[in-house]
Amino acid sequence: MISPEKPYVIGLDLGGTNSVFGIVDADAHVVAETSVKTRGHNDNAQQYVDDCLVELRKIIDQVGGIEKISAMGIGAPNGNYYTGCIEFAPNLSWGREVVPLAKMFSDALGIPVAMTNDANAAAIGEMTYGAAKGMKNFIMITLGTGVGSGIVVNGQMVYGCDGMAGELGHVIVEKDGRECGCGRKGCLEAYCSATGVARTAREIISKTDKPTLLREIPLDQIESKDVSIAAAKGDEVAKEIFEFTGRMLGEACANFAAFNSPEAFIFFGGLTKAGDLIMEPIKRAYEETVLKIYRGKAKILISQLDDAKAAVLGASALGWEVAMEKGVALNQGIA
Amino acid sequence: MISPEKPYVIGLDLGGTNSVFGIVDADAHVVAETSVKTRGHNDNAQQYVDDCLVELRKIIDQVGGIEKISAMGIGAPNGNYYTGCIEFAPNLSWGREVVPLAKMFSDALGIPVAMTNDANAAAIGEMTYGAAKGMKNFIMITLGTGVGSGIVVNGQMVYGCDGMAGELGHVIVEKDGRECGCGRKGCLEAYCSATGVARTAREIISKTDKPTLLREIPLDQIESKDVSIAAAKGDEVAKEIFEFTGRMLGEACANFAAFNSPEAFIFFGGLTKAGDLIMEPIKRAYEETVLKIYRGKAKILISQLDDAKAAVLGASALGWEVAMEKGVALNQGIA
Repeated sequence: MISPEKPYVIGLDLGGTNSVFGIVDADAHVVAETSVKTRGHNDNAQQYVDDCLVELRKIIDQVGGIEKISAMGIGAPNGNYYTGCIEFAPNLSWGREVVPLAKMFSDALGIPVAMTNDANAAAIGEMTYGAAKGMKNFIMITLGTGVGSGIVVNGQMVYGCDGMAGELGHVIVEKDGRECGCGRKGCLEAYCSATGVARTAREIISKTDKPTLLREIPLDQIESKDVSIAAAKGDEVAKEIFEFTGRMLGEACANFAAFNSPEAFIFFGGLTKAGDLIMEPIKRAYEETVLKIYRGKAKILISQLDDAKAAVLGASALGWEVAMEKGVALNQGIA
Repeated sequence: MISPEKPYVIGLDLGGTNSVFGIVDADAHVVAETSVKTRGHNDNAQQYVDDCLVELRKIIDQVGGIEKISAMGIGAPNGNYYTGCIEFAPNLSWGREVVPLAKMFSDALGIPVAMTNDANAAAIGEMTYGAAKGMKNFIMITLGTGVGSGIVVNGQMVYGCDGMAGELGHVIVEKDGRECGCGRKGCLEAYCSATGVARTAREIISKTDKPTLLREIPLDQIESKDVSIAAAKGDEVAKEIFEFTGRMLGEACANFAAFNSPEAFIFFGGLTKAGDLIMEPIKRAYEETVLKIYRGKAKILISQLDDAKAAVLGASALGWEVAMEKGVALNQGIA
């Protein structure tokens, strides 16, 4: 279906911190990769695109130029599948209004570009290559700078009436709870994102006299990864921070189950590196909290895909979708 | 497709209080109807079925006997579409374990019987005949003895991995909140079901000195409908009870939007009779609480179907599905 002259697609995993570009072949090999910081660019979307293009063109040249590329898929926070726009992304300084990112890249590169939510892209990647292969109903939860989600029902991505469905990081789990980047209070993301975990660390350390490795770091400089490092060394306070975070996630997932009764929750992102330290509290809180009819049914899994590659591959899978639509049309002489 | 000798299906709306049977023709006319109390029957499922059959056979005879009936559809609390069983229904004294209700009716009547969640049946009815005609993504919320829900994504009912998806009445909206019939605490149902509203009434009346018509009723005998009657007469305390209930619903729906970003929330059941008194607080709380990207997008609607008939018609629509599958098979000589 794909013209052999165009053996590649570009996948862009646009995270709150890094924007990772991969050039991917039809066998899901990432043949070239580069990345650009997502922040900065004078808080200007066009500047962001221009700065990305400088780096992107280098790897495009590596594979033989733009004529080798069929299409591009983007996974981005608040990325709208229907419109190709980033809409009101609280964590993107240049994306807090409506940014037609798919069109901007498409105009610059001269290839078709599709976009979805970064977490949806990860879910598509997981369904195509990872732990969700063959599953028809599952929920992907991405734990990074923010907390994202991709929901699959009857084997289809849930995009909703407007292309913006699946924002479980912004389900309010504590009324009048912590302030969230979205301007509201008590969102899951305010507790279980990287900054949420750092905030939990500061709160727990301030309240306890227990010895902890984390006291070696100035309180306002503790990061999520410091907690992981301390927990891996057996630090009790760090474990308590994971216990709290895991419980929040497990209780939230117990509520999510009432929606689509998923076969599995699949967790993805830096926090899952802590393994059982985070996954056990999630499982325990989930089974303790979930409605009786759902008990013991959903698997709680870690993504089987390489962290950086999952979202890039997911985005590229979206790229292949577009490429195939256009490719079929071109090969058959259809407009 | 339907054999003309079998022009009818049976729809059963199995509610916590009443079980309403309707015999329905292909044009969605309920040609005969009867009902049986759901409670009682010595807390025994077989007794419940036998008692129902006594009444049901009377209306079957009215339309010319069982040979005129193609199939039966049931909408029941915790009704499992995949297995035809009622599974652990907290509000059914004879349904707290696993009851193969579809098979029990099918064996007794000799016709195919399909079952789903009562709220799913209402959603199917609404999608086929009511306010959700033409909608691909919506959430139906049923406010009755319990709080139920039917979720539609991409034009399909969400049944989940086990046939039991869509139990939004059991999303926990207040941690350590009111005790719920499901054995947990803080479920939406504990606040917004008929008994939840009565409980809110008792709490608010006990805490205030304001004059209210509701004080004419002994505190422990106040029912949800008394609140409606008082509110309709302009009673301020009754209005406050609706305000509280509406806010709980609106805030819950704001969280639900993060799942499937629906075109509409459609409310169904006794409480909606209060009209703006309940719908305005729902709308206000929803728009105040929902994530910015979803603001102003979802309609908050009241079911367009006659209260008793919506669920019966929904159940009958499920009956027609089965009838058509079997009918096509029979007419084409396929097993």
